[in-house]
Amino acid sequence: MKILIDAFGGDNAPDEVIAGTILALEEQSGFTAVLVGKEEVIKEKLSAYTYDKDRVEILNAEDVITCEEEPTVAVRRKPNSSICVAFKSLKENEEMDAFVSAGSTGAVLVGATLKLGRIQGLNRPALCPVLPTVNPEKQVLLCDSGANADCKPINLCQFAVMGSAYAEAMGVENPKVALLSNGTEDEKGNMLIHEVLPVLKETKGINFVGNIEGRDILMGDVDVVICDGFAGNVAIKSIEGSITALMKMMKGYIYSSFKGKLGGLLLKDTFKTMMKELDYNNRGGALFLGVNKTVIKAHGSSKRAAIKAAVLQAVEYSQSAVAKKVKEKLDSVVIPLNVQ
Amino acid sequence: MKILIDAFGGDNAPDEVIAGTILALEEQSGFTAVLVGKEEVIKEKLSAYTYDKDRVEILNAEDVITCEEEPTVAVRRKPNSSICVAFKSLKENEEMDAFVSAGSTGAVLVGATLKLGRIQGLNRPALCPVLPTVNPEKQVLLCDSGANADCKPINLCQFAVMGSAYAEAMGVENPKVALLSNGTEDEKGNMLIHEVLPVLKETKGINFVGNIEGRDILMGDVDVVICDGFAGNVAIKSIEGSITALMKMMKGYIYSSFKGKLGGLLLKDTFKTMMKELDYNNRGGALFLGVNKTVIKAHGSSKRAAIKAAVLQAVEYSQSAVAKKVKEKLDSVVIPLNVQ
Repeated sequence: MKILIDAFGGDNAPDEVIAGTILALEEQSGFTAVLVGKEEVIKEKLSAYTYDKDRVEILNAEDVITCEEEPTVAVRRKPNSSICVAFKSLKENEEMDAFVSAGSTGAVLVGATLKLGRIQGLNRPALCPVLPTVNPEKQVLLCDSGANADCKPINLCQFAVMGSAYAEAMGVENPKVALLSNGTEDEKGNMLIHEVLPVLKETKGINFVGNIEGRDILMGDVDVVICDGFAGNVAIKSIEGSITALMKMMKGYIYSSFKGKLGGLLLKDTFKTMMKELDYNNRGGALFLGVNKTVIKAHGSSKRAAIKAAVLQAVEYSQSAVAKKVKEKLDSVVIPLNVQ
Repeated sequence: MKILIDAFGGDNAPDEVIAGTILALEEQSGFTAVLVGKEEVIKEKLSAYTYDKDRVEILNAEDVITCEEEPTVAVRRKPNSSICVAFKSLKENEEMDAFVSAGSTGAVLVGATLKLGRIQGLNRPALCPVLPTVNPEKQVLLCDSGANADCKPINLCQFAVMGSAYAEAMGVENPKVALLSNGTEDEKGNMLIHEVLPVLKETKGINFVGNIEGRDILMGDVDVVICDGFAGNVAIKSIEGSITALMKMMKGYIYSSFKGKLGGLLLKDTFKTMMKELDYNNRGGALFLGVNKTVIKAHGSSKRAAIKAAVLQAVEYSQSAVAKKVKEKLDSVVIPLNVQ
């Protein structure tokens, strides 16, 4: 198994990417890391580490796509960028299994769609972060969190199918799929929700459980939450923002009294463990579901721990053949005809 | 000043509504509470309290609209419901200033629009909760949080104007208005955002600061966040859900060790104060902006403290003439022509 890693993607590249890759190699055997980027720089950085040289390869790419560049333009104009070189290799080489990047989200999505290619029969791939829930044994997949700001009913139906396939590949039996809306009742929703709800109810081969609200996402009752990329992005960033805000406020309160400070001191480790658990970045990146191989988009601000998690996630998804299972499920599930 | 209060609205009506009303009367002078609902029941419940009888009136209404009823149908079929009777009185009597209800959100919105009436020139009123931010001195108004699941550019423009007027009435100078999107850059957004962004930039008389993301809502940098009611609902409920989830997880962690338990004990009061501060329900209800008088929708699960807060909020908004200022601002702000 070979995992391509964008050595020049993200705010802390290449140092943290390389450090994270080494950590992943140390933690798990059975895969080779292919670092993509300026070969000389990578070689020099690698020389600081002791590692199994048989498990690290370098794929040279002289260019870098930055987050400031317009993704479609950048992907077209920079064929020698780490992202483009990686996707080319992923597409052309049977032995390459996955790609991990903390670089420009837009460029990764465009590159994956244009260079690697969508699964046959799928209209739009989706960016899917895996979130923790209040149930320590359960995670929830949010599909889509931002790849498709405007969606049609057929897109949401296919997200439901892809999300189900992902959850099944992760070992969840008969995964529950819910539609994000502004109320749980069937009457709630905007035009898109009203159009897609009856279609989802009629779709055979998925376990659709109806509408849920934003407050239910983290409750651990469902395995997959589907929504258009705009709503999904609002949801995930509101979740991120409220956790940050709450921890900030808590700090303020704790420091405002002696009792608080003492309590805070005793809970310091607890808070740390919890924040680590909550930080979805440390669970790896968001999966780009619907393209022909495993593509993981790690957060731009990823440090080594997040990169390590993303690389191990890529290994896990490749081992579980998520992309293949998504394709099979898309082929087998019967979405009512005439849905567009 | 007279505040109409729906004695039969909400999960804990009439007991908690009446208790909350009494608390509000005790805390602040200068207004009369008009309890709307079954007179005999209200009278009997009131007899348990000692209060200034000159400051409490009862407006009889024999019927109640439940949350299970379809709002438009219920408002038409139940003219003697507490919600309909209250809106009729609010519309017809100069001396009535505001209405507070913890009842069916749909029925309150429909009743307000049909019976009380929209501000002239406004297309769609909006439901606007006031949220705390990490800056203890700042609050943020979310406009709309669910009254209009599908919006057109003109709606968002008018929300920006109404939100600005509200913030100005609350003493904020040159309030910052931001548009909720899936990225801060101008290129981000769905079709609606792309249409409305240039219009907002050209609108004279508001301080529009551009796009923000879900994670920025609680950061205290802006005073008003505008969005369609679907996105707003996803945002506010995701915020609510993540705070609930975080506190649940924290409890689990705290109880898992002796050190944690001790720390938790020391921080018990801190947590309590913070949760009270964070619970936007305790700040009153959501303001229904864009109708001719002050209408406050308190959370359905409101207990006495939340009802008290909502009643005092109604007094404050009426004193600050929020509805009148919204009308004036809608008349004075120049939204570019041809926006629909």
